[in-house]
Amino acid sequence: MQNVESIIHARWIIPVEPEQTFYENYSLVIEQGKILDILATKKCHKKYQSAIEHHLNTHALIPGFINTHTHAAMNLMRGIADDLPLMEWLSEHIWPVEAKYVDYQFVKDGTTLAIAEMLRCGTTTFNDMYFFPDAAAKAAQEAGIRACVGLIVIDFPSAWGKDSDDYLHKGLQLHEQYRNHPLITTALAPHAPYTVSDEPLKKIQSYAEKLEIPIHMHLHETADELQQAIANDGMRPIERMEKLGLLSPFLMAVHMTQIDDKDYKQLKRYGVNIIYCPESNLKLASGFCPIAELHKHKINIAIGTDGAASNNDLDMLSEMRTAALLAKAIAKDPSAVPAHQALSMATINGAKALGLDHLTGSLKKGKVADITAINLDSIETQPVFEPISSIVYSSNREQISDVWIQGKHLLNNRKLTTIDEKQIKQTAREWGEKLSHI
Amino acid sequence: MQNVESIIHARWIIPVEPEQTFYENYSLVIEQGKILDILATKKCHKKYQSAIEHHLNTHALIPGFINTHTHAAMNLMRGIADDLPLMEWLSEHIWPVEAKYVDYQFVKDGTTLAIAEMLRCGTTTFNDMYFFPDAAAKAAQEAGIRACVGLIVIDFPSAWGKDSDDYLHKGLQLHEQYRNHPLITTALAPHAPYTVSDEPLKKIQSYAEKLEIPIHMHLHETADELQQAIANDGMRPIERMEKLGLLSPFLMAVHMTQIDDKDYKQLKRYGVNIIYCPESNLKLASGFCPIAELHKHKINIAIGTDGAASNNDLDMLSEMRTAALLAKAIAKDPSAVPAHQALSMATINGAKALGLDHLTGSLKKGKVADITAINLDSIETQPVFEPISSIVYSSNREQISDVWIQGKHLLNNRKLTTIDEKQIKQTAREWGEKLSHI
Repeated sequence: MQNVESIIHARWIIPVEPEQTFYENYSLVIEQGKILDILATKKCHKKYQSAIEHHLNTHALIPGFINTHTHAAMNLMRGIADDLPLMEWLSEHIWPVEAKYVDYQFVKDGTTLAIAEMLRCGTTTFNDMYFFPDAAAKAAQEAGIRACVGLIVIDFPSAWGKDSDDYLHKGLQLHEQYRNHPLITTALAPHAPYTVSDEPLKKIQSYAEKLEIPIHMHLHETADELQQAIANDGMRPIERMEKLGLLSPFLMAVHMTQIDDKDYKQLKRYGVNIIYCPESNLKLASGFCPIAELHKHKINIAIGTDGAASNNDLDMLSEMRTAALLAKAIAKDPSAVPAHQALSMATINGAKALGLDHLTGSLKKGKVADITAINLDSIETQPVFEPISSIVYSSNREQISDVWIQGKHLLNNRKLTTIDEKQIKQTAREWGEKLSHI
Repeated sequence: MQNVESIIHARWIIPVEPEQTFYENYSLVIEQGKILDILATKKCHKKYQSAIEHHLNTHALIPGFINTHTHAAMNLMRGIADDLPLMEWLSEHIWPVEAKYVDYQFVKDGTTLAIAEMLRCGTTTFNDMYFFPDAAAKAAQEAGIRACVGLIVIDFPSAWGKDSDDYLHKGLQLHEQYRNHPLITTALAPHAPYTVSDEPLKKIQSYAEKLEIPIHMHLHETADELQQAIANDGMRPIERMEKLGLLSPFLMAVHMTQIDDKDYKQLKRYGVNIIYCPESNLKLASGFCPIAELHKHKINIAIGTDGAASNNDLDMLSEMRTAALLAKAIAKDPSAVPAHQALSMATINGAKALGLDHLTGSLKKGKVADITAINLDSIETQPVFEPISSIVYSSNREQISDVWIQGKHLLNNRKLTTIDEKQIKQTAREWGEKLSHI
């Protein structure tokens, strides 16, 4: 008998790699924060023992969700201005609030609120883009969640930076600070083609190649964006990105609701990752991203929630469901994006986009123990014919019972272990009060 | 001081009528199952007292949801066959299971499971269509939920009926049996234009007029349905319905994803009610119902979940959110179907479609106390800037804390009071086992 750090016995284990597979009455063995073994519970009882054994008899274990597009701090602006045309929403609500209130503490508190929500929804990694990424990194580090912190670059000044050089400089400092951190990585995060000019974009590409980190960028979010780009630059943003050398496997292109037939081959050839944010695209009426068609071209697609101001939650379980449902309607094919494919998009595909798939995104021996447990013994998920389908189409965030990151138990039977729930709710209420006075 | 049956003190009361309104720190007074008064809590303390006073200090009260399209018993087939083309799904999975297993007990158990789910999601009325409507009525009566039971008519035999005359005859008997029941009403429920021929449809219309009850029917669900109708009948189903006299305020036309420009005026002129099932339409890739455009024409639109085999839940909170999000994308307008309008579609508009708006669908003095309480003090709904927006865009079924129907407390702090949760889950598991063997 081998003594190990901890063992989780589960009714089902869904490794995601290989796809479309589940094991029944299996156990997952954790040692030094990593997955040491996955085997039948009967065999496990003979081979391993631990002082910490969890018996999740009605639960499924899946890899923790990877939320590949967030503006976490915007949780404090959840619902501050809904149901408005995009430019009115931005210029009369979001931007004035940001100009007046966004500082280090706002981002630290907002990101902590977002992390609390994400852990409760089964997310173990998030890919963020916002001002004061140092505050977001700090919040993630304190909570123990895995995060890829976006080193935001934008041509315009904010409380965080004067100009694109200043943003880049501060970002690279932050990158240095967290280099080799077990949980925190960084990505270069130019906001969008229409807010970052050519020179900084070229610098960003060269840093991405040098540091081998992703580029996280909004791209082709709306039809308007394309029209204005054609008017200003004489070409579509994706063409400009190609010209600047930004189309590569480093690129995480967020939204991409506007895709021409010729784009599929380009995206595939350059190995670009598409980040699909279906609920934000619906809520802002941005357009429809043709997921099934992208998948046919074997382009890597991951899922993100976007910020809470345009969603209005960071619930990856619900986002995965919307992703699967909407993709069928867009493709006019009810067999498009089946449940297991949606689950891959919400886990391993996100890890690939972030360059973290050697570490996380699936339940495999040797990977870190980033794990989410879902209790399927709920009236809303009875009966269970196939657990992957039950998770994708019927489960809800309250059924997320436990979350481990690097083997550390961060959500224990619905209780957060590293964030004070009462305190963060109180902080959120206080910010809400403040932000109402604009 | 007036002694009353019970009082609910709430942080917010959202009456739905008038629309886009909420009252803060208000109380709702119940007497003999009806709403006696709605007034500021401070005033209430001076005017009313009761042995039963609920203090919901972080909650919003809304009218209970009205789910206007269910096949409740199909909860037992939740997830039995997902991600398949429509005809393969029906002919190789759903129909064989129905042929082999559907009987009185199946419908009673499946409907009870569905009612448990609906109550836990804040639904107080559902509009059902399935075989053995007598079993559905019995299940609703026992649980104490309000139901409009569909008197199903279909040309083909089943365990419930031989032919359309037999279905109609049994349906009318059931109508007689529940006439004047405080909770159970009936609707004539011809399955669809392609499964019910002209003669029974004419009879159905004459009974609807005579008995003054609604007609609940799938209509224009898919493009295929229209193509086949044109091939078979030389006209679109809606034209055939007009010819047969079925277009009227009695008609609840479910789905309507295929609408031509000239249909809007017809639907408006005849006062037809549209039942929008966005998640089912997405999952089966049926098409997009143009909600914002229908609304512009002042056509009454209500929301239904459809059955759990094609959704895969009966969660009206989530359905309402999807309805609001999807409508914006279809209309290419982020200000289309704002939160308050989505809430109306999920409550009062359903009551209107069912001819029950004198009784339920809004929180108004004199109406019955069909009430749902939602706790907004959750990490996922902080901060709250506007409670209607928080409910529609951020709330989740686990935040539904309490449900009253006719003043009776059917969900008490997440516990069902009339259904044994353990028992119904066990029953569902047993049916699941059986149904796996087909």
